[in-house]
This record gives sequence, C-alpha cells and structure tokens, in this order.
Amino acid sequence: MSSKLAQTYTSASNWAKLTASKLQITKNPNPKQPLPNDKLVFGQSFTDHMVQIKWNDKEGWASPQIVPYGPLSLDPSAAVFHYAFELFEGMKAYRDSNDQIRLFRPDKNMIRMNQSAERIVLPAFDGEELIKVISELIKLDKHLIPKEKGYSLYIRPTLIGTTPGLGVNTPTEALLYVITCPVGPYYSTGFKAVRLEATDHVTRAWPGGVGDKKLGVNYAPSVKPQLEAAERGYQQNLWLFGEEKTITEVGTMNVFFVFKDSTTGKKELVTAPLDGTILPGVTRDSILALTRDRLDSNEWEVNERYTTIYEVAEKSKKGELVEAFGSGTAAVVSPIKEIAFNGESINVPLLEGEQFGELTGTVAQWISKIQYGDEEYKNWSRVVADLK
Amino acid sequence: MSSKLAQTYTSASNWAKLTASKLQITKNPNPKQPLPNDKLVFGQSFTDHMVQIKWNDKEGWASPQIVPYGPLSLDPSAAVFHYAFELFEGMKAYRDSNDQIRLFRPDKNMIRMNQSAERIVLPAFDGEELIKVISELIKLDKHLIPKEKGYSLYIRPTLIGTTPGLGVNTPTEALLYVITCPVGPYYSTGFKAVRLEATDHVTRAWPGGVGDKKLGVNYAPSVKPQLEAAERGYQQNLWLFGEEKTITEVGTMNVFFVFKDSTTGKKELVTAPLDGTILPGVTRDSILALTRDRLDSNEWEVNERYTTIYEVAEKSKKGELVEAFGSGTAAVVSPIKEIAFNGESINVPLLEGEQFGELTGTVAQWISKIQYGDEEYKNWSRVVADLK
Repeated sequence: MSSKLAQTYTSASNWAKLTASKLQITKNPNPKQPLPNDKLVFGQSFTDHMVQIKWNDKEGWASPQIVPYGPLSLDPSAAVFHYAFELFEGMKAYRDSNDQIRLFRPDKNMIRMNQSAERIVLPAFDGEELIKVISELIKLDKHLIPKEKGYSLYIRPTLIGTTPGLGVNTPTEALLYVITCPVGPYYSTGFKAVRLEATDHVTRAWPGGVGDKKLGVNYAPSVKPQLEAAERGYQQNLWLFGEEKTITEVGTMNVFFVFKDSTTGKKELVTAPLDGTILPGVTRDSILALTRDRLDSNEWEVNERYTTIYEVAEKSKKGELVEAFGSGTAAVVSPIKEIAFNGESINVPLLEGEQFGELTGTVAQWISKIQYGDEEYKNWSRVVADLK
Repeated sequence: MSSKLAQTYTSASNWAKLTASKLQITKNPNPKQPLPNDKLVFGQSFTDHMVQIKWNDKEGWASPQIVPYGPLSLDPSAAVFHYAFELFEGMKAYRDSNDQIRLFRPDKNMIRMNQSAERIVLPAFDGEELIKVISELIKLDKHLIPKEKGYSLYIRPTLIGTTPGLGVNTPTEALLYVITCPVGPYYSTGFKAVRLEATDHVTRAWPGGVGDKKLGVNYAPSVKPQLEAAERGYQQNLWLFGEEKTITEVGTMNVFFVFKDSTTGKKELVTAPLDGTILPGVTRDSILALTRDRLDSNEWEVNERYTTIYEVAEKSKKGELVEAFGSGTAAVVSPIKEIAFNGESINVPLLEGEQFGELTGTVAQWISKIQYGDEEYKNWSRVVADLK
C-alpha cells in the first residue's frame, strides 16, 4: 500500500519530509484516569497527548512532536480563521481480544487526507510516516483506549493553514496535528433507526465543487438545515441534488439503499457513484467490497449508480424498498426507518422488533469483526501496538 | 439605518446583548511606530490593539474587550478548526482632510455579517454596537491610520465558533474579534488592468449553496484554480456557472461589463443579479446606486442581469464590448484588459495610454471622493472619530 501512498506524496524537492523517526516526545506530567465506558460521549474527552507537526514552505516538515494535550496559539490573522484552510480525517483504533491495537484501513485515510490537502494547497506528506507517529501516540495513551466491543479510540488528524496575514493566498505555514478521544458505540443501546428529511432547498455539494474532499468547508453550512429538519422531528437531512433530486448523502454519511425486484426477487444494493460530489468514505468502500465479495450474485447486484428520491418513493409504493442505511466511521452503519419528502412519508422496513434491516445488521457485523481482529480480511485491520 | 440592522438582530431572549458601553480597554504598553506609507503591504502589519468579544449560548455576549494585538489560544478540538465555523467582513477607515476618520457604509457590512452568522448558526449581534466598539479601536490606534489619498486602515471583523469537542453541532461558544491593518492603494502605481482566465472546471458557488455569504468556506477552494490560472499568465479566475457559462464573479470580487449597442449607440452596465450565488458586495451596491443616479439614462442602462462568456465574446467581436472591471473593498475597482476562454482571447478596451476604461475611472473617483469625505452622498460616509 505504500506505493499507492507514494503517488499522493508530492512536495517541493528541497522540503524536509515528514519523518516519524525524528519524533520527539514531551510527556504529560498529569496523566488522566480513564472514564468509565458508560460516561464516554463522542468527541468530548481527549487523551493526555497530541501530535503536532509544523510545516513551512521554506524548510518543509519539522520534527513530529508528541506533547501534552493543550491549546493552540495562533495569530488572529492566521489563514485558518478567515479562509477555511482546514481539513481532517476520522479514524478509529480498536483494542482486540489479545490487547493489540488495530487501525482499520488507515492507508485509505492517509490517501484521502493528502487529496484534501492538494485541493486547498496545503502540503502533502507521506501517510505511512504519519501512521507511525499516530501509533506512538496510541502507545503513550494506551491506558485511555477503552476495552469492550463497540468501544474504540477515535483519532482526528487535522491539517490547518497557519500563515499570519490577510491575503487569500497559498498558506506558507501549516500545522498538522492529531488528537484522540475514547468513544463508545454511536448508539449506546444498539442500533436506533433514524427519520430523515429529504432536503432540496440546500445543496451539499455540486459538480466542480469540493464535496468529495474532507474539508472543513463541507460541514458548517450543513448544520442549519439539520437544525431545521430536527425542529420538524427528523434527525438528519437526506441530501438531494438537481432537478432530478438525485440522492447523494445523508447528514455527514454516505447512503445505501436495498431494492428488491418484485418480479424476479433479485435484490440490489445501491449507493451514489463517486462523481466528485460524494465523499469517498472508507466505510462506503468497505461495504461495497464486502458485499461484492460475499453476497450471492445470483440473488444480489451491488451497484454504484444514481438513484432519486422519486425512484425510492416509487419502489416503496411497490413494496420494493427493502432497507436503507447511512455509512461512516463514527456509526459504521446507521439504519434509516423513514424519509419525508414533499409532505409524504416513505417508510423503510426494519426487521420485526429490531431497529435495523437484515443486510444492515450483517454488514455491521462483518465490519466489526474485521475492526476488532476477530477475522482477518485483506490486511484491512493493521496492528499498530501490542499492549500485552 | 438602525432599524434595518435591528431586523437582522435576533437572539435568544435571555442572552446578554453585545453592548459597546460595557467596553473594557487594556492598553498595549509597547505602541508601534507607523511604517512609511510605501512600506505598507496589504494585510501584513497590524495595529497595536484588537477587539475581542466572547459569546456563549448560556449568557450571550460578554463585555467587549480591547486588548493588545496577540495570538488566540484555542482548544485543538475547537469547531473553527474542523468544520469551518468562521466568517468575516472587510471594511476600511479613511482619514479625511480634516483629520476625521470615516467608515464607508459600515451598516452594510454589519447587516451582511449577521446574515453570514445566521447561515452557519453563529450568534447574531447589534451591528451598530460593534461599529461603536470598532470606533474606539480606531481612536486608540489612530497614530497608525495612514495619511494620504489612497491609504486607509483595513478593518477585519471576524466571527469564529470556538466550542471544544468534535461533533458537527451548533457552536455553543464563539469569539468575535476585530483586527486592523494600515494599507496602501491596491495597485501601488495607479491602476493595473488584469488578465483573466474564464474558469468552468471549478464552480465557485451553486444554487442552494452559500456563495452569497462572506464565509471562510468560499475562499480556500478558490486558491488552487487561481494558482493554475497564474501559471498560464492570468492573474485571476473569471468564474463561470452552468452549461450557459454565466459569468458570476472574478477572483474574490463582483464583476461588471460595459456594452455599447453599435446600432443605437446606447451603453449598458451589467453585473450578475443577487440570485444566491453572488456576494452582495458593498462596492457592487454602491456602483449600481451611483451609476443609476448619475449616468444619463438617455445614454445608459444599468442592469443586474445574467450575462455569459459567449455574449461577452460575441459583443467583443462586434466591437460592442467597451469595458470590464471587478469591484470590491480592497481595490474598489479593478480594470480588466483580457479574458481567455477556450483557447481564445477576448480583449477588453482601455483608454488610450491608460490602464482603465472611462466608466471604471469615473466610478473609482466618485467612490473615492465619498470615502475620503470630499463629497457627501446619502450618509454613506460616516465620521467615527475626530483626530483634530
């Protein structure tokens, strides 16, 4: 996988590269006690340390630093505050039954992070080196990595432009940092299927835009429509695009539908194609690979194709809408039970007495087993620390 | 104008309001010496003090503070670093011939700032109160406001979401701050007409997007296409939209064209309508108002309408393209001399031996006279400090 990463690793020839072997560690003199698992709230409590790696356009990447978790000090004119020079990744570290710590397909996150950086002219770096640095961070904060299935350490690599000065220019200074937080399962009491509002008055992403990059710019504008949907009783927006009302994403996740042809009985798993408006989710990619690999092709088709809210409504009326779910790092899969559109309600079936559909549950289990190392699959789960 | 502002001033009933009379000042013990005017570079040197006003969703706006210019200290999980909860304004303070300091239509900036805040669920505030606070900042740093026509104090009000924590949620904490820097004329040696590349592979804004708000999200993605245009010898992008290749903006400015009907001899000033994809520029609005007021309607039409790159190319071939210019706070007007599109070059006439067209020069003078108080017009220029 290193060769793939190398393709995205571009830099001025004279820059110092991001090099894990130069890592310097300043230990936190006041280590935290772990919170009980049932007190963990997503993104609210952080570990003792953080990674910081400075970059400038003269020298390139400075030595990686692990330092006590604490505030950043930045000039008020810094590019990140005015022009949204910022991007991030979301990853998780899982503790397996042998007390080994595993990352799930971290190379995919590093490739995407470099693609995001390239789009807003922030510096590229060798993702394998950052994974090594993150591994050291994980080892240092190992006492804060939760035990128990469903729990994990959420990892947030972030890259910001820090150049002081007010012109809209290529940042000449940047900071790559990584913070981590112990997290529980997204739904603390098993799955909870959500109600969606199909949204066409706000457009999440568009051709020639940046909806396929994990940039800060894709997030702030999504909160107001989400609040508006919540006021009407819907947890998330189902984002539509264009006059055809193509379905693109749900909230901050990719979205999948399962249809069943009432004549042939054949089922189809559908998600939007990566046309530049869709985030290339690692979970999305994993679901496509696993279902293509494991579902019986006599019974199933797995398609990356456009679907519209009209098709979903029509399929629903014919009894051909079988399941729908979102996918993302935080929740892995998030079952959908209802979609409101134009004053009508599209009901999505769930298993009798459950909060999820059959494939949704199956896929969640497949991925969980790989993430927690109960099953090996294509080197997707990478051991980065052994705490035995 | 206060009543207009009041319309945009919404807040939870129990929030403390942003109140200038609560201002607290901590003076900088080491005041700067002013740089000579010819050493001023846009956005590079700041004044001695800055405004900071904290907000949280429990108490509302805290007392405004004027403190020495210095770094912000923020949690690495703060919303502004991950999800682009950030917006800003650009304003200028001008020193008139009586040593009075004047702001140009500051109420327009305050209205727009509140509109930007509303869109990304950051808190609203009373703009007139912020203008009072900015006036105090100006008075304190008066020794750094340049004298001489063409020079001014650039003012950057900024609002960021500062809540620590990683969920994509409504910020519960925010910081409004204002920094200022003495600046020279955008073109240090008079006008310099620019060459543009018409850009259709990247789309600046979209219906249902946020192109009409002054949010950070609109800026970072514009730098890469600008660098690509620069590599080919063009200073800025002329942003096109859709299959019709409608002209929307230029770089970070609004854009105007002057056409002349070769049959009737009648001239038309055209700029894109405010359809949600266009920033409602204060300079744009001022140019429309002044030209509608002052140009002879027997000779001129002033239209907010769509125009396309094809129309501009066709008008150019018929000798009906007379002028083109960008408009914005930094440069006021920025003359255009050439537009590249699809391998062809559209030449825009300039006055003989000059770097601008006739209307461009006229409009620049009209606005400059009002900004520097040489002429009063509709209370557009507001005296906020008297340094006599």
